[in-house]
Amino acid sequence: MEVPPPLVLKRHLYVPSKTLMGPGPSNCSHRVLEAMSNPVLGHMHPECLQIMDEVKEGIKYIFQTLNDATMCISGAGHSGMEAALCNLIQDGDVVLMGITGVWGHRAGDMARRYGAEVHYVEASFGRALSWEELTFAFEAHRPQVFFIAQGDSSTGVIQQNIREIGELCRKYDCFLVVDTVASLGGTEFLMDEWKVDVAYTGSQKTLGGPAGITPISFSKRALTHIRKRKTKPKVYYFDILLIGQYWGCYGTPRIYHHTISSTLLYGLREALAHFCALGLKAVVRRHQECSKRLQLGIEELGLEMFVQREEERLPTVNTIKVPFGVDWKKVAEYAMRKYSVEISGGLGPTVEHVFRIGLMGENATVERVDMVLSILNEAIQSIKLKAVKTERSKI
Amino acid sequence: MEVPPPLVLKRHLYVPSKTLMGPGPSNCSHRVLEAMSNPVLGHMHPECLQIMDEVKEGIKYIFQTLNDATMCISGAGHSGMEAALCNLIQDGDVVLMGITGVWGHRAGDMARRYGAEVHYVEASFGRALSWEELTFAFEAHRPQVFFIAQGDSSTGVIQQNIREIGELCRKYDCFLVVDTVASLGGTEFLMDEWKVDVAYTGSQKTLGGPAGITPISFSKRALTHIRKRKTKPKVYYFDILLIGQYWGCYGTPRIYHHTISSTLLYGLREALAHFCALGLKAVVRRHQECSKRLQLGIEELGLEMFVQREEERLPTVNTIKVPFGVDWKKVAEYAMRKYSVEISGGLGPTVEHVFRIGLMGENATVERVDMVLSILNEAIQSIKLKAVKTERSKI
Repeated sequence: MEVPPPLVLKRHLYVPSKTLMGPGPSNCSHRVLEAMSNPVLGHMHPECLQIMDEVKEGIKYIFQTLNDATMCISGAGHSGMEAALCNLIQDGDVVLMGITGVWGHRAGDMARRYGAEVHYVEASFGRALSWEELTFAFEAHRPQVFFIAQGDSSTGVIQQNIREIGELCRKYDCFLVVDTVASLGGTEFLMDEWKVDVAYTGSQKTLGGPAGITPISFSKRALTHIRKRKTKPKVYYFDILLIGQYWGCYGTPRIYHHTISSTLLYGLREALAHFCALGLKAVVRRHQECSKRLQLGIEELGLEMFVQREEERLPTVNTIKVPFGVDWKKVAEYAMRKYSVEISGGLGPTVEHVFRIGLMGENATVERVDMVLSILNEAIQSIKLKAVKTERSKI
Repeated sequence: MEVPPPLVLKRHLYVPSKTLMGPGPSNCSHRVLEAMSNPVLGHMHPECLQIMDEVKEGIKYIFQTLNDATMCISGAGHSGMEAALCNLIQDGDVVLMGITGVWGHRAGDMARRYGAEVHYVEASFGRALSWEELTFAFEAHRPQVFFIAQGDSSTGVIQQNIREIGELCRKYDCFLVVDTVASLGGTEFLMDEWKVDVAYTGSQKTLGGPAGITPISFSKRALTHIRKRKTKPKVYYFDILLIGQYWGCYGTPRIYHHTISSTLLYGLREALAHFCALGLKAVVRRHQECSKRLQLGIEELGLEMFVQREEERLPTVNTIKVPFGVDWKKVAEYAMRKYSVEISGGLGPTVEHVFRIGLMGENATVERVDMVLSILNEAIQSIKLKAVKTERSKI
């Protein structure tokens, strides 16, 4: 039996233009999009290796690190989480997951598959982890690896005290993995100064690059540990010694590891170049100012932020309580249908409880904040009105 | 200490235009490149899911399969190899690797990391596996999984009898994994008819799509086995039950698994659409005709194909013996410097022994064949002449 060519592929490609103000991806700039239509390059061509070198320097800057083992994983943000855990964990290692939303649980799922003994320390719903929770859990479990998302995009919670957690980890001879996928660029992050052992971030959030290529960096301390492993990391594709060799991290000849997507490299390179031109501090300040403006606006609309404490609110992914009696899905649909603007619902524990409004990269501007506030308000009012009408029609 | 923004990112992005006639990536068409500068979409947006559905149909066509579990892995071709092995292998499983070049060894490295007991059956250098070698190895090892690259891009060898290997695997109750990264589109491949359990291919070879997104398909038989596993596959990122759920393969609601790169989806979608419009049989015929023409030309130039038996030559990646006394690297450099044409050297066991000329996608045309032959000849003559001059100057 022959499988015929599908009719759907006879249609033209249809890609609408939207304003992506959910938890990510955010919009790519024209510069980034244009870069990705450049001709492809071979994965060992000098011009491709040159772009990789430039990307590497950009990543060092955004992480504020001098780590040699700074590179990208060829995969989504999740592949950064995999690579961090895969390289550090050996069978039976005790791994502690900090939970301020869904991401610690995801990391726990991965770590268990790698053979770790996984424990969790969970913050109260909508809160960051307290110092007491952290120190108690460290003392109880004495982990070899500790994982925390600096910003958890499901709850909109930020864990502020990474510096202190870095010290705590050293005290317990533990490696610190920080997921900065949703936070980097929206808040301070000083990898070296804070003694972070592995950090990775999303290309498609504040950077405004394409999804599918994930910046990651390993400290010298982590690298030394990985070099001394008794068994190879369980995944060839995530083996940081091999990937780093391809990325020219260790001063050894560059050896082919996989075929990198030059297209995504172009996009990420241009996103990083733009980010660097603006400057890290200015980018962070802008994201914070935009979030503050949004928070004020939310209050003025009579709505409430989900994260109670102002200092625990992630500036990049803002969570807003869905008002009683309002269907979040209808609000999101309204915004998309009428304005092609993405306002997102919750994820995991916050599903149906919150709206998530992303202010990242191109969309972290005063104009976008005012726009999204206006649309959110209009959408909620319209949904409420419709609900009233439906009720009346029932009478 | 503050890490300053890197100066290299103040320069403009530089991407030269080359004709990629190595083992891949091949050139993307204008249609594919243009598609990738479309605005990004969210990974759960209906338009994105729609494109994924279209891509899925396209993959079913190119693999000639009706498998529900047909999707892409968000990663390079290597991630397809990982996903195939990761989902099938449980600790202690006996896995047999067919070796006709480097790829069976690569798969062996991966499988060992996943806890398999790995055995190899190796063809003579530059040859496909014989039926005797295969049956002897199956009888000796009684594997649970057998891996073979239909085309090995390092040697240019094609394994023709996948259909018979499919029968052999059934006889031994073994799962058959076929790597079609370098072969699909250049030779016949009938996944269902040949009883292949897992197949994956490269997006950046005959398809002429972007690297970084890897089509893969699992048979119902493989899927049933995976559903019955006692332990989860070792890698969340490659868990085909979760990825397939996101790709809408199992008739269940689509659940977020990772952030797919919409950019790469656009490129792959357009590459598949073009491929489907041409038709599988016509594409295969064209690749074979081009390879035949190249082989004739090679003989006419007094050069020799590396693979002795004509029927064991892979049409997509053609390996040509480097003539005695000629430095392959200088030939490749000449072609690149003077014509911006990529002619590649060997890989693994063929390093320094062969040139590899890729005739794939956009570059599988009569015109390109004639061009690359002419350039190859010119380059070799020029290098020889220089060598003679250098010799003379020494006298």
